[in-house]
Amino acid sequence: MKNGLFISFEGPDGSGKSSTMAFIGHLLQEKGYSVVLTKEPGGDEIGQQIRQILLNPMNQEIHPITEAFLYAADRAQHVQKIILPALQAGKIVLCDRYVDSQIAYQGYGRGFLSKDFLYDLNHMASGGLLPDLTLLLLVKPEIGLMRSKIRDHGQSDRMEQEAFAFHQKTCQGYLDLAKEHPQRIFTVDAEKPQAEVVEICWQKISSFLKEQGK
Amino acid sequence: MKNGLFISFEGPDGSGKSSTMAFIGHLLQEKGYSVVLTKEPGGDEIGQQIRQILLNPMNQEIHPITEAFLYAADRAQHVQKIILPALQAGKIVLCDRYVDSQIAYQGYGRGFLSKDFLYDLNHMASGGLLPDLTLLLLVKPEIGLMRSKIRDHGQSDRMEQEAFAFHQKTCQGYLDLAKEHPQRIFTVDAEKPQAEVVEICWQKISSFLKEQGK
Repeated sequence: MKNGLFISFEGPDGSGKSSTMAFIGHLLQEKGYSVVLTKEPGGDEIGQQIRQILLNPMNQEIHPITEAFLYAADRAQHVQKIILPALQAGKIVLCDRYVDSQIAYQGYGRGFLSKDFLYDLNHMASGGLLPDLTLLLLVKPEIGLMRSKIRDHGQSDRMEQEAFAFHQKTCQGYLDLAKEHPQRIFTVDAEKPQAEVVEICWQKISSFLKEQGK
Repeated sequence: MKNGLFISFEGPDGSGKSSTMAFIGHLLQEKGYSVVLTKEPGGDEIGQQIRQILLNPMNQEIHPITEAFLYAADRAQHVQKIILPALQAGKIVLCDRYVDSQIAYQGYGRGFLSKDFLYDLNHMASGGLLPDLTLLLLVKPEIGLMRSKIRDHGQSDRMEQEAFAFHQKTCQGYLDLAKEHPQRIFTVDAEKPQAEVVEICWQKISSFLKEQGK
């Protein structure tokens, strides 16, 4: 059923995921690969409506369980409407955030829901689809938050507005996930200059494509 | 933890749930009970935003799994922010639609997701909270749809716009649920005149309150 490759980009806010992913997408297209660049939350029109609820700074009353189900709803829509059709058509899907974000932000950051609960929820939402490869771009939370503040001209969304301790716990979550899934998750020091980060990601993806016979 | 009573009103579109529930709420308040009247989807401000996604007739691209997670997100928010606090304060909660609607509409009507999947999802969303009593108002789908069309002046939402066969399967779902949960679900013939329907519901609730020592 699935001939393509699914690669997710993960990391805290301001780790450079989106711009690194855009460079990698461009490099893959230059090599002749058919590539889909997408993101969570908000991969399609329905996902955009869910994203607006999740990231609106006015929505302070969202309960952590509601938040988990909204991210899962967005993931279900994204998998069914964007990711699976692209993989079935043999394309390479590059995705800005996927399940690891939910574990890191909600499981570790909020600390309200267990990892088991979140994994079960995600399994039901995605039908068990996991990335073939995850590039985890790591920066210290103080650097990530400063970078995202500059990028957004001081405007922050509901998640970015969380306290510093939340972002520290989220970073710890990413580190734990990398230890638990060393086969899938490849960690990149994203405090290096961007050209170097892109180069490291590109080397990893190139060798991964060779391993997969693509 | 829970001193109140949780009573849901269920049934197909146009079965008279909302107006019957309003009458019952009024009667209970006259007797001195503290009552909360609420509904799904859309029990609070966040739920209203989720409801807009679910019922917008433009949103034809919502996948059945996404739809299930959005209803579950709304239920999680509703349970945590409205229903549980009211029950803990000893109030009687009257709720227009709850989990049975999801099983009837999504499990039977759409026929895409299994009942087990929907029960698991609901259990995770609600923490296992079920109504103490459910009043199921039954009308034949052709009568219910005609009534809701007149009520809404010909404007129908995304669920009401479904084909007639969908509403027939939904009604069958309600009948099956009533057979499976005879202790909890009390069925009322809602094709009778409204005053009679309200009287039957009132008799049932009065005797239920006595049984519960309220």
